[in-house]
Amino acid sequence: MKEYNIAILGATGAVGRTMIKILEERNFPIKDLKLFASSASVGKIIRFKNKEIPVQEITNDSFVNLDIVFGAVGNDLAKKFAPEIVKSGAIFIDNSSAFRLQDDIPLIIPEINPEDVQHHNGIIANPNCATIIGLMACYPIHKINPIKKITVSTYQAVSGAGNKGIDELEDQTYKLSNNQKNITFSVFPQQIAFNLIPQIGEFEKNGYSKEEMKFVHESRKILHSSEFEVNCTCVRVPVIRCHSESITLECTNEIELNKIKNVLKKFNGIKLYEPYPTPLECNDQDLIYVGRIRKDPFNSYTVNLWCCGDQLRKGAATNAIQIAELLIHDKSL
Amino acid sequence: MKEYNIAILGATGAVGRTMIKILEERNFPIKDLKLFASSASVGKIIRFKNKEIPVQEITNDSFVNLDIVFGAVGNDLAKKFAPEIVKSGAIFIDNSSAFRLQDDIPLIIPEINPEDVQHHNGIIANPNCATIIGLMACYPIHKINPIKKITVSTYQAVSGAGNKGIDELEDQTYKLSNNQKNITFSVFPQQIAFNLIPQIGEFEKNGYSKEEMKFVHESRKILHSSEFEVNCTCVRVPVIRCHSESITLECTNEIELNKIKNVLKKFNGIKLYEPYPTPLECNDQDLIYVGRIRKDPFNSYTVNLWCCGDQLRKGAATNAIQIAELLIHDKSL
Repeated sequence: MKEYNIAILGATGAVGRTMIKILEERNFPIKDLKLFASSASVGKIIRFKNKEIPVQEITNDSFVNLDIVFGAVGNDLAKKFAPEIVKSGAIFIDNSSAFRLQDDIPLIIPEINPEDVQHHNGIIANPNCATIIGLMACYPIHKINPIKKITVSTYQAVSGAGNKGIDELEDQTYKLSNNQKNITFSVFPQQIAFNLIPQIGEFEKNGYSKEEMKFVHESRKILHSSEFEVNCTCVRVPVIRCHSESITLECTNEIELNKIKNVLKKFNGIKLYEPYPTPLECNDQDLIYVGRIRKDPFNSYTVNLWCCGDQLRKGAATNAIQIAELLIHDKSL
Repeated sequence: MKEYNIAILGATGAVGRTMIKILEERNFPIKDLKLFASSASVGKIIRFKNKEIPVQEITNDSFVNLDIVFGAVGNDLAKKFAPEIVKSGAIFIDNSSAFRLQDDIPLIIPEINPEDVQHHNGIIANPNCATIIGLMACYPIHKINPIKKITVSTYQAVSGAGNKGIDELEDQTYKLSNNQKNITFSVFPQQIAFNLIPQIGEFEKNGYSKEEMKFVHESRKILHSSEFEVNCTCVRVPVIRCHSESITLECTNEIELNKIKNVLKKFNGIKLYEPYPTPLECNDQDLIYVGRIRKDPFNSYTVNLWCCGDQLRKGAATNAIQIAELLIHDKSL
């Protein structure tokens, strides 16, 4: 079997570390693995299988001779390095939002639009975590009863803000539990321990946060549908690493609950989990758990569901690695 | 000014204690205050103004010579004592769900349907906390642009399960923050610390929880409308005492954001709080805070909002005491 030269940008962050773990778990065919991070992390040693890999800083020739580069850095760094990666001949699978809505760049959830992977020019974008988790739960239903609109309220874990988000929740919680008064915050705009913050990213002119509009735009691109309507409210909650979503789906035809449950049960990547999953139960799982499936009390074309998924795995790292596996499977690599 | 003989059933619970605090804060015209609780609490002394009041057990003549009895106990006890209270001539303002949907019993949010208070037969019901908080936020909008349907996802604090709910969250959090492994739960069906539980109350045949169906039925009764549709998902979150709700409102006419904000700003009991409130900011407040007001991205008849309110105050105790104040104001007492 062919093996590949792989690199991870942002290897010490929450998503980067999860990528390393998943590459090992899935026994991804790796010849050489390079780990890049900011200068603060350079020299750290990360174990991968039976090797110890030193974290390196990116230099002029970092991308030479690579097949795939996974991006787990912010938009600025993704934009900075993308041209060099592409020029070097590697494929850049990027988890930032820098390229997601660009016309010539595929945005992929492998269970939903794998065929789009064929039309890339060196960059493939990984969707936002809330989009992946919510759309995974909706798509099987969409296939048997086309969805016109979803109304989504999210309950998003602090891991969405990386290791520093997890640290901030844990630090605040420890202090509050031990009667210490000096609660500070810098990652989130307010205290998140024992609190909720209905803002993820900045607000746009229309009153929606960036996170909410990502869900709107990314869903329509992934589904190739300008008819698919999304009305979304994104809320940060004091949960470590799994996102949950309460979703109301307005469909084209009358809802048949048994059919919906059957199609969810059979869909690759979904676990039908009744009466409901909690985010804690989905920690470190790749499957999106779906429960609370019930008809609207007044409208027979509308159905509700509740889903949970690990934000760091299927919401980020696993999806990116599945995209790489698609490329291998399609022999584009 | 006339003064009244008052009693509280369940005086040592989270709602009962908040009632005592609010009676004092509002300088409610009290001649005598009797505090009743279960035998485990009998003998406890509770301060009210400059008096020390002993907690008593209910006996055969407990309700003699009372004007108002506030109920802060469960359905079983409310049902058990209601006939005796009514027979004694007192008015029973009950916070349980035992009587809320009974035809001859008014269900009141004083800012919304105060006139219904006139038609009681000795019992007046206080709505469920999630209904009060959500309906308070929606009603001003309903008055200027009739609402056809609301889709609600709640983020409900543990105080909704009483003192023992708060204790369970605090205990679990302390243990998890201090690396103790023996996490137990008995109040909630799973660990609530760092978790979410999309179940409040048992599930009915239609897949909705009791809490969700309370919102449906109570809203329609309070608004005297069989047209008002509610689709609700109730979720317990690791927050101490304020409920939050993400609400999508489908209205009759096109949404005019400025008009909606103006009517919310002027409505008694509401605080327009932009861009958004968090539950922590609403602790120990009577006002329902409303923010994140924005149009649906695709439908000009639909608007979203986010609201937070103290579950123990306006969600329970304050609303009950406001009902008593209505009775006094109407000279029915």
